[in-house]
Amino acid sequence: MPQAPIALIARNPNAVLNWQTKLSAAMPNETIIAFAALSQAQKAAVEIAIVADPDPAEVAALPNLQWIHSLWAGVERLVAELGAAAKPIVRLVDPELARTMAEAVLAWTYYLQRDMPAYRAQQTTLEWRQRTYRPPSTMTIGILGYGALGSRAAERLNQAGFTVCGWSRSPKAADAHAQLYSGDDGLTAMLAQSDIVVCLLPLTVETRGLINSTFLAEMKRGASLINFGRGAVIVPEALIAALEAGRLSHAVLDVFATEPLETASPFWTHPSVTVLPHISAPTNFDTASVIVAGNIKAYRDTGALPKTVDVVKGY
Amino acid sequence: MPQAPIALIARNPNAVLNWQTKLSAAMPNETIIAFAALSQAQKAAVEIAIVADPDPAEVAALPNLQWIHSLWAGVERLVAELGAAAKPIVRLVDPELARTMAEAVLAWTYYLQRDMPAYRAQQTTLEWRQRTYRPPSTMTIGILGYGALGSRAAERLNQAGFTVCGWSRSPKAADAHAQLYSGDDGLTAMLAQSDIVVCLLPLTVETRGLINSTFLAEMKRGASLINFGRGAVIVPEALIAALEAGRLSHAVLDVFATEPLETASPFWTHPSVTVLPHISAPTNFDTASVIVAGNIKAYRDTGALPKTVDVVKGY
Repeated sequence: MPQAPIALIARNPNAVLNWQTKLSAAMPNETIIAFAALSQAQKAAVEIAIVADPDPAEVAALPNLQWIHSLWAGVERLVAELGAAAKPIVRLVDPELARTMAEAVLAWTYYLQRDMPAYRAQQTTLEWRQRTYRPPSTMTIGILGYGALGSRAAERLNQAGFTVCGWSRSPKAADAHAQLYSGDDGLTAMLAQSDIVVCLLPLTVETRGLINSTFLAEMKRGASLINFGRGAVIVPEALIAALEAGRLSHAVLDVFATEPLETASPFWTHPSVTVLPHISAPTNFDTASVIVAGNIKAYRDTGALPKTVDVVKGY
Repeated sequence: MPQAPIALIARNPNAVLNWQTKLSAAMPNETIIAFAALSQAQKAAVEIAIVADPDPAEVAALPNLQWIHSLWAGVERLVAELGAAAKPIVRLVDPELARTMAEAVLAWTYYLQRDMPAYRAQQTTLEWRQRTYRPPSTMTIGILGYGALGSRAAERLNQAGFTVCGWSRSPKAADAHAQLYSGDDGLTAMLAQSDIVVCLLPLTVETRGLINSTFLAEMKRGASLINFGRGAVIVPEALIAALEAGRLSHAVLDVFATEPLETASPFWTHPSVTVLPHISAPTNFDTASVIVAGNIKAYRDTGALPKTVDVVKGY
């Protein structure tokens, strides 16, 4: 019997086309078929689905499904939509993603350290005024969420001369790039010293709404915030209030609870907010396809799955 | 006879106060007196002047002057104002300046690579649109002016994954960070491959107006320009024309032929120009004062001057 095809499921038709090309090139021995093109017999046979923001009903229409490979690093929506009874989910862990995210963290840290938003505002009023330069050695950057992405970002910041501290819910092994904190007391200690707080947190029951008025009140006066994690970690009203009160200087927001960001959001027009359309670390189709191919080959060879997502923790 | 005081000459009164404090702390054995506070007898005795944008008439009022220590790295105005008969000029060569400038080059390279001006423009129209991400490995940055500042900038860009090429009027020794070019043919070759051209050139007879319509026509279509060198290296009308024609994508300008930039300049309001108020690499008073103190101590100990400026070349 020939090997069952792999189902490719994505809501965005362009994503389907791109992924089918790249994944097929990376796995010439596999047959990868977009969900819409599967016959009933193929649907009945499929064991593996590769998904990017899939319609849950399509995933549910594969009765013999054994596991799911997500093409996204963030899987909280997938977990929520498929439910706890879902098949095992493998998420994309791509070193190129960590490189790109660390680059974004450094680039937007420079954006704030070098006062780019303030100089942009000055340009609109033809104002020639030099602001006080802050050398990296005088600034502390706090990273919320200290996994593969956070530690790589800390390394880049540290090489650039910034002092770095990192926070995670549970303690992590010590690291040459950052002073590490964990738990509620650790969060308070980290926020009290950070000139810029960079959020890389996944969305979980514990992180939803974590950046609320209490959190913002614990930040240094005049500090700034970068959110490259998930939008719903922030309580928008609390952030707007902190910016209005001048407690915070600026917020760079790349992720939102609803995307695209709704036109009614006050973030769009707030002078102290930089809105980005979820571009901090775009997926690299080439490197990601090679990694997915490697995981599937290992499964074919050994029957073992790569590390899967803990659906209770959410990552 | 007690040692003659050192004259401190600067046009800006705040600069006089700041430098007097920092220089006196760095040289407790020397007497540093602002020009306005010198007696006639002291003026007659002064051998060394430390200057930051000085009034040439004040420099000329020191009959026993032996040499001048500039607190600025750029000395073309000083050379032009004092004339070829001026006393030897030592310019500030501060490793902290090279560090700060290299940081500025990387920061504003990220600004362009990460499409920050375009996303800022999108925000003003509430447009949610992801632009194509360009990994550093796919981009070449060309550095015009490959001295101490240029090679340090190349090192930072190279570490960040960019391909770097450098150009200087006369050939420089090979370097691990950049492909080096020189002369007119070398300039053409370098411009043809650079996605971003970073100007770090001093202002000399040869560099004045170098970035004209011919130069801009040799740049890659859609490339961008950063000028952290001197304003008069650019012909403003030619740059505006290249931006209007869409040949160039964006220009980041930190230096201008007249500073502050005149309010009538079209640069202020052009959507493809970022105007900065000469802030790429501000002088660090602390590190600079220590370096000046070292040069003066060496002169007191040995009678020898540090390397002085070639008034014909202008640097």
